Amino acid sequence: MNKQENIISVKEAVEIIQSQVEDFGEYIEGSFDSLHKILAQNIVADRDFPAYDNVRMDGIALKLESIQKGVKTFKIQGIQAAGSPAMLLENEQNCIEVMTGSILPKNTDIVIQYEWISIKNGTATLNFEAFDKQQLSYFKNIQAKGFDKKAGSELIKKGTRISSAEIGILATVGTQNLVVKDQPKIIIISTGDELVAVSETPKNYQIRRSNVFALQAILQENGFESSTDHIADNKIVLKEKIASHLKNYDVLLFSGAVSKGKFDFLPEILQELGVKKLFHKVKQRPGKPFWFGKKEKKTVFAFPGNPVSTYVGCLKYFLPWVNKSLGIDNKTKTAILAKDFDFKPKLYYFLSVSIEEKNGQRYAIPQKGKGSGDLANLANADGFLELPAERTNFKKGEEFPIILFRK
Amino acid sequence: MNKQENIISVKEAVEIIQSQVEDFGEYIEGSFDSLHKILAQNIVADRDFPAYDNVRMDGIALKLESIQKGVKTFKIQGIQAAGSPAMLLENEQNCIEVMTGSILPKNTDIVIQYEWISIKNGTATLNFEAFDKQQLSYFKNIQAKGFDKKAGSELIKKGTRISSAEIGILATVGTQNLVVKDQPKIIIISTGDELVAVSETPKNYQIRRSNVFALQAILQENGFESSTDHIADNKIVLKEKIASHLKNYDVLLFSGAVSKGKFDFLPEILQELGVKKLFHKVKQRPGKPFWFGKKEKKTVFAFPGNPVSTYVGCLKYFLPWVNKSLGIDNKTKTAILAKDFDFKPKLYYFLSVSIEEKNGQRYAIPQKGKGSGDLANLANADGFLELPAERTNFKKGEEFPIILFRK
Repeated sequence: MNKQENIISVKEAVEIIQSQVEDFGEYIEGSFDSLHKILAQNIVADRDFPAYDNVRMDGIALKLESIQKGVKTFKIQGIQAAGSPAMLLENEQNCIEVMTGSILPKNTDIVIQYEWISIKNGTATLNFEAFDKQQLSYFKNIQAKGFDKKAGSELIKKGTRISSAEIGILATVGTQNLVVKDQPKIIIISTGDELVAVSETPKNYQIRRSNVFALQAILQENGFESSTDHIADNKIVLKEKIASHLKNYDVLLFSGAVSKGKFDFLPEILQELGVKKLFHKVKQRPGKPFWFGKKEKKTVFAFPGNPVSTYVGCLKYFLPWVNKSLGIDNKTKTAILAKDFDFKPKLYYFLSVSIEEKNGQRYAIPQKGKGSGDLANLANADGFLELPAERTNFKKGEEFPIILFRK
Repeated sequence: MNKQENIISVKEAVEIIQSQVEDFGEYIEGSFDSLHKILAQNIVADRDFPAYDNVRMDGIALKLESIQKGVKTFKIQGIQAAGSPAMLLENEQNCIEVMTGSILPKNTDIVIQYEWISIKNGTATLNFEAFDKQQLSYFKNIQAKGFDKKAGSELIKKGTRISSAEIGILATVGTQNLVVKDQPKIIIISTGDELVAVSETPKNYQIRRSNVFALQAILQENGFESSTDHIADNKIVLKEKIASHLKNYDVLLFSGAVSKGKFDFLPEILQELGVKKLFHKVKQRPGKPFWFGKKEKKTVFAFPGNPVSTYVGCLKYFLPWVNKSLGIDNKTKTAILAKDFDFKPKLYYFLSVSIEEKNGQRYAIPQKGKGSGDLANLANADGFLELPAERTNFKKGEEFPIILFRK
């Protein structure tokens, strides 16, 4: 039997993972804490927009008909301030000074900006040299009540990821609390006896834990909270702790212990704990021994322990899965390869690149990094260009999907 | 005297603002709280990367010379686990099983993966059918100590905005605290007596406060904290409160009271308080009456109260200023106009657009919105395409700068 047989393609891995989305429910959030959350209800206009005939220029309000009849000079009856009830124009020979944001005074239907008039002794005179009479029209400089939206019309669709614009809209319509999508409970777990705490000085055969923190930061950037744990390469301890995490979390993200090593217990233990393997190994570099499985509604992503494998695995597989679970579209971004690049193995390759934008195009410049899989090589990179497995030569000017990890 | 004389162009406004950057100092932050902060020190490798000759495949370690001499079968002397001190290969006829992440045993110089050997009765036999002898080379499947970086070499440059990748690197080198750029103290202040609290039901001539919350969310998305205030259209109260805010904050962002209205006291009060006007009015729509000034190290952006004016002003003027102040490059993004668009007034126009990515290109689709300046129109938009003042016809396929406000 060919050992390569069970290795699936990246496309197959994505399809399997995306077929395993879950719903994590909804909860009520305060509007001002809802940035980046996913709206689980529609937001409708509580009243017309604008809510009243809204003055959009500082100047005078009057009757257009009076101008058409030849009146040029209007007595100022008073000032309509923003935030005050509508005044009434008592006489069509008069005008009322109006301020931007105020309600249009009753019995008026045009606002003439200060730039077009002169005011003297309580009288406003139209300065016809400053403008052409043709520019005057009914409701000029006024936004009519309901011009934008009628009361009850939909302003923000269910499923929208709340941005700063939506925060403003929620305030406008007086939404103080709203139903948003709940997030999965996520734990990120490292394994590997060579790992020590960040605060420790490693011995010459040890390194510090870093993968879980990089992953936690990816999640944080995308608005997700997570816990972390580290488990020793001991089968009994691993099994006990993982059993407990499967009870308490919706998603387990592992780093390490999925390869062929003597202490790579994870695939075995997960299956013993009833997590069904959906695949193990993907035709990709880095990250080939990636293991993915499900136990009822619990989802397990077990990435190999190489730091870049774990990092790119989280971006390529976990994030699109959680986004789809929450109902967010995963838009594919692409970039243009800025110079020829060769990659011999028949594996899908996540090429570490920096990005330059030029003429509305995103260009991907392959990093000179030695590709050891160490996170240190990512300090000068902005993303991973995704090069298909079936090819070995990639030409300058060709377009490929890209995963970006910087703001 | 021509009243238009003092209106400056968007380009001039940007230049004046960018000439007024400030330094807000530095402070010490915990590494795990530093996501999106700006590094104010270099981060160097505390030791070589990798820190030891690092096994990158599960398999056996041995001497390459032995294979070259024709040895095919090696007695397994023991297992080198990750996280254990280096074992010593006692006999060159032997091998040691090694696990990914472990230190290379002493007296070995090649790792042969499990896929290429068979193990029986404590002996490993090279399976020459599985591979070509040419594929064997000195240090195969091993990353030599210091291969990536030498101890003391620079890993992350001062001035880098910390992403998830840097969080991983900081953990790797054991950085628990680091010096980052401090942020300005920012307050966002609305004016306008037509505004009521979000929790209130507005009367028919009132609207709810929304601009300050949209701006606060923009700042939050970019990692900045801010306070908010609302001040009534009363000259005495305004002056008193603004005097106090000028003492307590580095940056004041205003929404409203900068136009020609009877209650637009802001330019006058700011000058009375010693804030020097650097400009008032920009040839743009929306947001023409934008006022900008300085008092020593305090910076005042006073945007007109129209919600979209305030919103786009914050994105176009404040954010690049604060980024430059912190030492971050402001990279101009561009997009391709997806259909012809006309805009008659000789003003720089911030056209509300949605974005589609296609073939590595960003396309900007003008929104049908009625352009009233209401935030509700932004729910379907992704950004503002920046159309120059001197033109009126813009053609499909042309490229313009773009301001994006969604993730």
